[in-house]
Amino acid sequence: MRALYKHHAGVGLKYDANRPKPTPGPRDVLIRVKKVGICGTDRHIWEWDDWAASRIPVGIVTGHEFVGTIEAVGSAVTNYKPGLRVSAEGHITAWKDYNSRTGAAHIASDTKIVGIDRDGCFAEYVVVPEENVWPVHPSIPDKIAAVLDPLGNAVHTVMEADVSAKSVLVTGVGIIGLMAVTVAKAAGASRIFATDVNPARLALAKRLGAVEAFDVRKGDDWVKEIKKATRGEGADVLLEMSGAPSAFDLGFRALRNGATAAILGIPSKPITFNITEHVVFKGAKVLGVNGRKMFQTWYQMEELLLSGRLELDEIITHEVPLEEFAEGFRTMISGEGIKVVMRVGE
Amino acid sequence: MRALYKHHAGVGLKYDANRPKPTPGPRDVLIRVKKVGICGTDRHIWEWDDWAASRIPVGIVTGHEFVGTIEAVGSAVTNYKPGLRVSAEGHITAWKDYNSRTGAAHIASDTKIVGIDRDGCFAEYVVVPEENVWPVHPSIPDKIAAVLDPLGNAVHTVMEADVSAKSVLVTGVGIIGLMAVTVAKAAGASRIFATDVNPARLALAKRLGAVEAFDVRKGDDWVKEIKKATRGEGADVLLEMSGAPSAFDLGFRALRNGATAAILGIPSKPITFNITEHVVFKGAKVLGVNGRKMFQTWYQMEELLLSGRLELDEIITHEVPLEEFAEGFRTMISGEGIKVVMRVGE
Amino acid sequence: MRALYKHHAGVGLKYDANRPKPTPGPRDVLIRVKKVGICGTDRHIWEWDDWAASRIPVGIVTGHEFVGTIEAVGSAVTNYKPGLRVSAEGHITAWKDYNSRTGAAHIASDTKIVGIDRDGCFAEYVVVPEENVWPVHPSIPDKIAAVLDPLGNAVHTVMEADVSAKSVLVTGVGIIGLMAVTVAKAAGASRIFATDVNPARLALAKRLGAVEAFDVRKGDDWVKEIKKATRGEGADVLLEMSGAPSAFDLGFRALRNGATAAILGIPSKPITFNITEHVVFKGAKVLGVNGRKMFQTWYQMEELLLSGRLELDEIITHEVPLEEFAEGFRTMISGEGIKVVMRVGE
Amino acid sequence: MRALYKHHAGVGLKYDANRPKPTPGPRDVLIRVKKVGICGTDRHIWEWDDWAASRIPVGIVTGHEFVGTIEAVGSAVTNYKPGLRVSAEGHITAWKDYNSRTGAAHIASDTKIVGIDRDGCFAEYVVVPEENVWPVHPSIPDKIAAVLDPLGNAVHTVMEADVSAKSVLVTGVGIIGLMAVTVAKAAGASRIFATDVNPARLALAKRLGAVEAFDVRKGDDWVKEIKKATRGEGADVLLEMSGAPSAFDLGFRALRNGATAAILGIPSKPITFNITEHVVFKGAKVLGVNGRKMFQTWYQMEELLLSGRLELDEIITHEVPLEEFAEGFRTMISGEGIKVVMRVGE
Repeated sequence: MRALYKHHAGVGLKYDANRPKPTPGPRDVLIRVKKVGICGTDRHIWEWDDWAASRIPVGIVTGHEFVGTIEAVGSAVTNYKPGLRVSAEGHITAWKDYNSRTGAAHIASDTKIVGIDRDGCFAEYVVVPEENVWPVHPSIPDKIAAVLDPLGNAVHTVMEADVSAKSVLVTGVGIIGLMAVTVAKAAGASRIFATDVNPARLALAKRLGAVEAFDVRKGDDWVKEIKKATRGEGADVLLEMSGAPSAFDLGFRALRNGATAAILGIPSKPITFNITEHVVFKGAKVLGVNGRKMFQTWYQMEELLLSGRLELDEIITHEVPLEEFAEGFRTMISGEGIKVVMRVGE
Repeated sequence: MRALYKHHAGVGLKYDANRPKPTPGPRDVLIRVKKVGICGTDRHIWEWDDWAASRIPVGIVTGHEFVGTIEAVGSAVTNYKPGLRVSAEGHITAWKDYNSRTGAAHIASDTKIVGIDRDGCFAEYVVVPEENVWPVHPSIPDKIAAVLDPLGNAVHTVMEADVSAKSVLVTGVGIIGLMAVTVAKAAGASRIFATDVNPARLALAKRLGAVEAFDVRKGDDWVKEIKKATRGEGADVLLEMSGAPSAFDLGFRALRNGATAAILGIPSKPITFNITEHVVFKGAKVLGVNGRKMFQTWYQMEELLLSGRLELDEIITHEVPLEEFAEGFRTMISGEGIKVVMRVGE
Repeated sequence: MRALYKHHAGVGLKYDANRPKPTPGPRDVLIRVKKVGICGTDRHIWEWDDWAASRIPVGIVTGHEFVGTIEAVGSAVTNYKPGLRVSAEGHITAWKDYNSRTGAAHIASDTKIVGIDRDGCFAEYVVVPEENVWPVHPSIPDKIAAVLDPLGNAVHTVMEADVSAKSVLVTGVGIIGLMAVTVAKAAGASRIFATDVNPARLALAKRLGAVEAFDVRKGDDWVKEIKKATRGEGADVLLEMSGAPSAFDLGFRALRNGATAAILGIPSKPITFNITEHVVFKGAKVLGVNGRKMFQTWYQMEELLLSGRLELDEIITHEVPLEEFAEGFRTMISGEGIKVVMRVGE
Repeated sequence: MRALYKHHAGVGLKYDANRPKPTPGPRDVLIRVKKVGICGTDRHIWEWDDWAASRIPVGIVTGHEFVGTIEAVGSAVTNYKPGLRVSAEGHITAWKDYNSRTGAAHIASDTKIVGIDRDGCFAEYVVVPEENVWPVHPSIPDKIAAVLDPLGNAVHTVMEADVSAKSVLVTGVGIIGLMAVTVAKAAGASRIFATDVNPARLALAKRLGAVEAFDVRKGDDWVKEIKKATRGEGADVLLEMSGAPSAFDLGFRALRNGATAAILGIPSKPITFNITEHVVFKGAKVLGVNGRKMFQTWYQMEELLLSGRLELDEIITHEVPLEEFAEGFRTMISGEGIKVVMRVGE
């Protein structure tokens, strides 16, 4: 089959027109891939940074965002049949630890991730366990179905923070931060404030529903402006999407006492943090967000898409065939595009 | 001062141009009334039904929905000064029981209600304790500020049920049910279904955001239709706004297992209810909703109004001067209007 | 193998020394049974009441509470091996509906129950899907491990209601009500009140930790007594374990405004219920409780057993060999015993 | 009146036998003090460290933990009368910001604290606003009623974390950490692990209910031991009571994915914290805890005391007359005693 794989311990991926087609085990499904999304994580793998070098096995097919059609099912599979259009949760667990057995499998202690720890979806076929399959609602187009994984990160963060009828600050409007803006609005956030260093992304955040979008390179007066707009107290909710240490410090300053902060951004190393002022005295609630709830987030995502209120057209900016992956990655890495989708098959 | 009062133990209210102006106690504020809303409860008092006859002291000024301006404050009042535009929570408590002291004063055991247990706001002046005052945001027009009390009922019910990214069934779209439709949409409900017996109200519910509005007089196939639209399982949330026994039975049938039902509708007598099927086997969560949270609901209401997403224009249908109260009540009772506002002063 | 089965559409069960041993499917485990518990449901099946006649297929092996040892596993089983001591959750689902996929499989819409809809554990061997297996902590003796199913009902109800530092009323102290008393105390309930019609059970409830135990046949002054002990307001929590309509009415009267009621008791037909007074005006939260959370309840149960604070010795009153099942059922049905355990194998 | 006050910007407090008796305002109560507790904060004021020098006005009467009897009430006070035995919440707010009006007055933005920002209770009389009064249950002795403030810190932390049927790690068993051990046990924690650097406090923690108490000076193997005792995953809950940076790092390591950490300890400066590993990837919930909920914590405290399960005898080690305050502070600062109470009047 056609596939992109990590051919060496260095920059880039390689295209192979004759990669062996995978075989599903008894509890697996084999999916013929239609479209895939390029994730920020795929960029780390492409660029072969320290994290990638320490985690990714050379030789694997990468990619974890996709939509496709079930081609075959293992002998012990009971819930699915060939022909169904599906996406899948990329976090794979044996369903035997505390979190897996209590509705929190997204933070299982034994998680293996598709396209990171095992072969992924930048290929004509991908195999996942039956439990990971998500049937895609007929009304959702392939282009969006291909990016349910990152959209799910945004939905998980927004829903965990509980934004309904609340003022919300999104620090960092990269791909997932932008998705979080439209998701938060659809999920009932009353007013959304956004910060970033990229004027184009800030402008897009406003088009997606932010009432104010602040360029943090121009100073930190935005903290005062948010307080002024919120009775002098601060925003109800922080969605941290940047991983930048300054966003943690200023983001928490912009919150009222008793606020909730949902953290998806991951600083690359430990940060210096004023936990006394920002968390204890403030009586704040801080929620770490990892992956997507299996499968509450997916149901919420479907409802939000069915509501017709998510605006993703300006976020999914480019689509290229799998064979033009180099152009796809260039578009994404240069910032020329935001979310880039690759066409693999029909 | 000018006022409407309950002049006898029978139908109607009487206008008095020379009612004595009330005097605030040391912890009270005196408010000059601008506009008031006519509530369904005022209708009960007007019609002098069994409930009214058992609860309302003949002689009191009625009315509890209003906006006005602080005219004077008692000697021990610390937070407010004359000149401030305000509305007020009509539930008065001594702040000494469990619920009052733990953030749930709306269900205090010693509650007295403005316009029901003591003089109300259908008058040039009304007195309330300092703790009950709600400063109205400058961006909210008087016409809406006059009906924050019933809007608060809708907001309380919707927020208690947690509708964000969920499918929601509203049984009964009278005044508060209609408000609940627009509030639920603004608060992030993904899809709203409504039921009623009044085609005009059902049509309005659809204009306010319901995806389907069912006339229950035509049978109960709507239960199947809701299930069909929700993976065959049922809606996530029920907002019961009718008090009709059949709405309890069919409304719960239309819910999925594990659903939440927030109940504002009050059956006039005990109902026969299949608690085994509808609550226990279903693993349902049923929430009684009374009044408005003091003052979380009011803050949520302000945020929802600031979001610009509440559509109240078609709900507040008529405005008359206080002196034309008879016409106001006729318009409301006949169903010709929905919410009727009366102008009292500037 | 040896087994008890429902041999006809009438009273009783029949012993068969040569029932065929079941064969596990690819995703199942075969368990050699050590001890089993007789449930109230087994009594309904024994007595062949209306419910049993409408639900139970004649011919099946009954029983659903047990502990045993894994004897063999199906070809696609990955998490368990022969030799492990286990119990199992008796609710079987295909893990494909909303609740199964969101951490609430105990209220799945497609649930089949061991010993009710398919062969159960009153036999030398029983088969369950891998997902239903619960490894039993080594410190828990067989006698207790045999009754984790009903203990789980009590734990689920108590934990759902959140009793920590709260006053709790348990209406009905049959087997599960008694378990709920000791569980509530271990889970942090500050004060427990119990009601029943059986003086011996009430006396046991007090030994297990209830501060007061009221015989409801003596009138309803106990409602006043509970209010008197709780600042005149009422208890924080109701655990309804009786299914008696009067317990619903009086139990809710004994609650303070804003209280929580967790309902495990199932009235045999719709009850007349004052939802206006008991739920709406009271601002109550009512939670239907069904089965055991899979598997949060099981983890909580393990923690509570490890705490050493559960007192079950006086609740598990009798143990008989499987062959003496008639005596076991007689002891349980007569009320001479409370929980009766049967020994099946080693 | 007799009183202790901060007489200069340096070490110590001074006794004055003729301090003027305070006069209550219209909404205040005047309380004749019976017993007071010496808090860790009073030690900071005594030692005049950087925090004290920056916050405490020279000249004020200090002290904020007390029990006494209402002597007089202001003209606008409605809920209390002279003669009532009371304690009081020391956080004073105008009840006008978001948190004050939504049940979270303990984190009001305008808080002033008795004995820190205004005259306190190390005196024959103290004045507090009516809203701050807490009537003490007759069954609670003065010695315990004098320390409801710090006990409330422990109760607030434990209840916020929700410990029922959970394994709990308490890092730091000073006065409030020790209280947290007995509170957590009474509130339903299944198993409690404690850490500290003081062998005597660790031994006391075990007597109060900890299953293990680790001396962190002996290395960090205790993290492994906790994991071993919790299925290899880690504890369910962290109660951080030390403020030590290493406790934050190791405490979070000892938690399972999806755990809750309630933070009462306040590092004296920003710490270096691995938020990516400890919060985000772990999917942890981190809760800042400040003061006591007004007044949910106080009700919970009363319930826990009524349960008879709190063991405070070994925590309240010394009692001295007010005049022997120097000995009281010496006993507390030296570590010879734990909680020291001073007798002021009858």
